[in-house]
Amino acid sequence: MSHVAVLGAGSWGTAFAKVLADAGRDVLLWARRPAVAEAISTTRTNPDYLPRLRLPAAVRASTDAAEAITGADLVVLAVPAQTLRGNLAEWARHLEPDSTLVSLMKGIELGTTKRMSEVIVETAGVAADRVVVVSGPNLAAEIADEQPAATVVACTDTDRATLVQASVSTPYLRPYTNDDVIGCELGGAVKNVIALAYGMTTAMGLGDNTRATLITRGLAETARLGVALGADPLTFAGLAGLGDLVATCSSPLSRNRTFGEHLGRGETLEQAQTATRQTAEGVKSCLAIRDLSRAHGVEMPITEQVERVCHEGADPRTAMAVLMSRKPRPE
Amino acid sequence: MSHVAVLGAGSWGTAFAKVLADAGRDVLLWARRPAVAEAISTTRTNPDYLPRLRLPAAVRASTDAAEAITGADLVVLAVPAQTLRGNLAEWARHLEPDSTLVSLMKGIELGTTKRMSEVIVETAGVAADRVVVVSGPNLAAEIADEQPAATVVACTDTDRATLVQASVSTPYLRPYTNDDVIGCELGGAVKNVIALAYGMTTAMGLGDNTRATLITRGLAETARLGVALGADPLTFAGLAGLGDLVATCSSPLSRNRTFGEHLGRGETLEQAQTATRQTAEGVKSCLAIRDLSRAHGVEMPITEQVERVCHEGADPRTAMAVLMSRKPRPE
Repeated sequence: MSHVAVLGAGSWGTAFAKVLADAGRDVLLWARRPAVAEAISTTRTNPDYLPRLRLPAAVRASTDAAEAITGADLVVLAVPAQTLRGNLAEWARHLEPDSTLVSLMKGIELGTTKRMSEVIVETAGVAADRVVVVSGPNLAAEIADEQPAATVVACTDTDRATLVQASVSTPYLRPYTNDDVIGCELGGAVKNVIALAYGMTTAMGLGDNTRATLITRGLAETARLGVALGADPLTFAGLAGLGDLVATCSSPLSRNRTFGEHLGRGETLEQAQTATRQTAEGVKSCLAIRDLSRAHGVEMPITEQVERVCHEGADPRTAMAVLMSRKPRPE
Repeated sequence: MSHVAVLGAGSWGTAFAKVLADAGRDVLLWARRPAVAEAISTTRTNPDYLPRLRLPAAVRASTDAAEAITGADLVVLAVPAQTLRGNLAEWARHLEPDSTLVSLMKGIELGTTKRMSEVIVETAGVAADRVVVVSGPNLAAEIADEQPAATVVACTDTDRATLVQASVSTPYLRPYTNDDVIGCELGGAVKNVIALAYGMTTAMGLGDNTRATLITRGLAETARLGVALGADPLTFAGLAGLGDLVATCSSPLSRNRTFGEHLGRGETLEQAQTATRQTAEGVKSCLAIRDLSRAHGVEMPITEQVERVCHEGADPRTAMAVLMSRKPRPE
């Protein structure tokens, strides 16, 4: 059996490399920064992202993406969503002819409003049935810690989904196959935006009734967009919809929730970026998702308000009050 | 306009009396214990349940249920689920001919496996379209505190639902009408059982991935039972399904979650009862829901395991491990 390339050594890429190794695969993990590859090779740890995780011997690190991709039957893409197109344009020529491309990325491309699998098909020039999406309630630190979890492996080609399922089945991670790529990707992308709103309401001191309502309405607007784009509405009731949304909103480990808390305390986007040393993906994707919803005539009031707070200087208190003051009507 | 009778001065009955008063109604709140009625009349507070709440002047207390019910156009039932039949058998003869009966109760009757609205119809001898169910993410303490929240007002008679909606609309509570009484009641009853399991996993130190998966699977088994009983599957994606489940599981104020945490720490049912000074409703309802699921041939693995822990002495660790080790398959 050939090896797996994991491209991107952030939290989820690194934890996923461990999963693959624990499921019996040899992994070549590409890190952009030499210091990260060096730390993994010499200490078996990725101190910046998952300091407590000791990687299995079957995970080797490299800063050479071509080396990682060449000969790999599975190529796992775990780079920041907005950098995928640029990275993959360089990497595509090294792909083996029938390799499977697995997306761990949760976002919508700015400007094009494309899902990650669409960007992969377009940039790598592969058929859509070679692209598999993995999505679910999978906080990387908990997976690294071997907390029991489940995930969804989605592909329009069921046989390919089953192959990937076998490569990521471990005693602590149960993968379920699904053929709804669109639904899984939208669930993963929109939940980052809802988690920003959840973080804002949390910082404002609003309670569990308000926040549970936000989760319910957030999933409803995600499903509305999904159905307009051809997703199966049932996907949103599953692990890649409801499950991922609840895990992300509940966890203090979630970057998008944490970023929302900074905004909810009245910080500007710049202050929140400085405090968290990054921009949460939902901050970028909310623009693309807002555009997508308008293009399809789908109402997404939470996404609209998050976009206003992030990019138009709206006050989070006003934005959340707008959401809560909508007129009573049948549910 | 005549007055509203609220029968039961526990947390939710008391908070709901405030909501009705804030929506412009006069309320007669029946308390079983004279000390509670006395405290409400003299201090406007219910110190045992919601010590911080100051009740509006439009809420009067009484220990005479007949006095409360006579002349009331709305009769709100907020007694413990398993005491409804006995109480209502005494109260029914005082009901006005076309009064509306509103159920705030979340449980399934032991022995009969009936929903609360079914017990009302049977015991009070009223038509089913006179019974309204109110259910949603409504932790009483947060409603009492005027945190923004939403709820569902369900009745097979849409006009009656709209009347009740008007009686509970306040700036902090948005009621939505719905005609799916069965779905709303099942959502409210089964979530108590899922919250017990959530509390157990919380006490065992399991993380947000595991717990989000439990919520997802818990809602799925609730919806399966609901569909078998004639509910609309979409109800479970709404406030009375997902919303109520998430609020109850997330909140440290939730009795069922707290009770589950005691069990998850290895306490016996008796120890947990002593520590919490009560039995959580889910402990009783899990038996009735388990019976209902078997009678309809519906798989409810979480409910089965909760029942084993509560009533058959099963170890919560073993029970949760059984849930987590189910075989990979399509979602």
